[in-house]
Amino acid sequence: MRCPNYTGRVLHVIFFEPRIPGNTGAAIRLSACTGSMLHVVNPLFDMTDDTKLKRAGLDYHDLAHVTTHDTLDEVFEQVPGKVYAFTGHASTFHTEISYGDGDGLLFGPEPTGLPQEVMDDPRLADLVRIPMLADIRSLNLANSAAIGLYEAWRQLGFVGGV
Amino acid sequence: MRCPNYTGRVLHVIFFEPRIPGNTGAAIRLSACTGSMLHVVNPLFDMTDDTKLKRAGLDYHDLAHVTTHDTLDEVFEQVPGKVYAFTGHASTFHTEISYGDGDGLLFGPEPTGLPQEVMDDPRLADLVRIPMLADIRSLNLANSAAIGLYEAWRQLGFVGGV
Repeated sequence: MRCPNYTGRVLHVIFFEPRIPGNTGAAIRLSACTGSMLHVVNPLFDMTDDTKLKRAGLDYHDLAHVTTHDTLDEVFEQVPGKVYAFTGHASTFHTEISYGDGDGLLFGPEPTGLPQEVMDDPRLADLVRIPMLADIRSLNLANSAAIGLYEAWRQLGFVGGV
Repeated sequence: MRCPNYTGRVLHVIFFEPRIPGNTGAAIRLSACTGSMLHVVNPLFDMTDDTKLKRAGLDYHDLAHVTTHDTLDEVFEQVPGKVYAFTGHASTFHTEISYGDGDGLLFGPEPTGLPQEVMDDPRLADLVRIPMLADIRSLNLANSAAIGLYEAWRQLGFVGGV
């Protein structure tokens, strides 16, 4: 089974300098399940280590949904829509955004989140947060990506989904 | 910080016979983050193994959000709202449900999902599915729980969340 080709409409998930291979593995699966693309910027582990990827239960099809990049600049060039940064330092809930085709959702490394210089990037459309109880440590990175991506895809009518 | 006491309003996540400790660990964190309760029915690993839980990054506060049960009957007695079973065999999207206070979201074991006798239980309000592309292997269990729970909590206005 090949993915539908909806270039320009596909949603993008962006992991900036992720540290934990299992979280990136889960996000690759998430991207394959939703027809999205995962962009991994400067991962702090070896993305070419097949053993780790296979241990995460990924297959050839899944791996068609991930690309790696040396810089965030490369990602901004490839994402045609708006890019929203997910951070605990935002006040807007992620559900208050009206997502569009080709938008990107940007997440920082575990457990510190996005560095200030990334949050200050003028190319970001907005900073958003996933609601939680007060004074709680953050959600797992893969779970945060799943929550954010499914909200965006829900708003787009789960295009391509059954 | 203690959880707000909204007995009866809190949402419930139910894991039936889960196999992978890391997924249950992520769901415990998810429950703590949202003020929900995770019910684990007959887990196929040792839930009292502190080492595994600590490795999953859980702390004392998180563990206040999980209970274990020998049977699903015990869970039905403790969940005041409706219980929805998440399964790839359903045709209703999980977003088509109107969730209420005290509802429960039931998930089966990795990777097989809920057994038929559980899906046939007349105490279930409905069977629902998380949309995906066709012919794709399923999402990670913890991610599925995150997607389902945040949709239910979104509909309830993220009560207690900031």
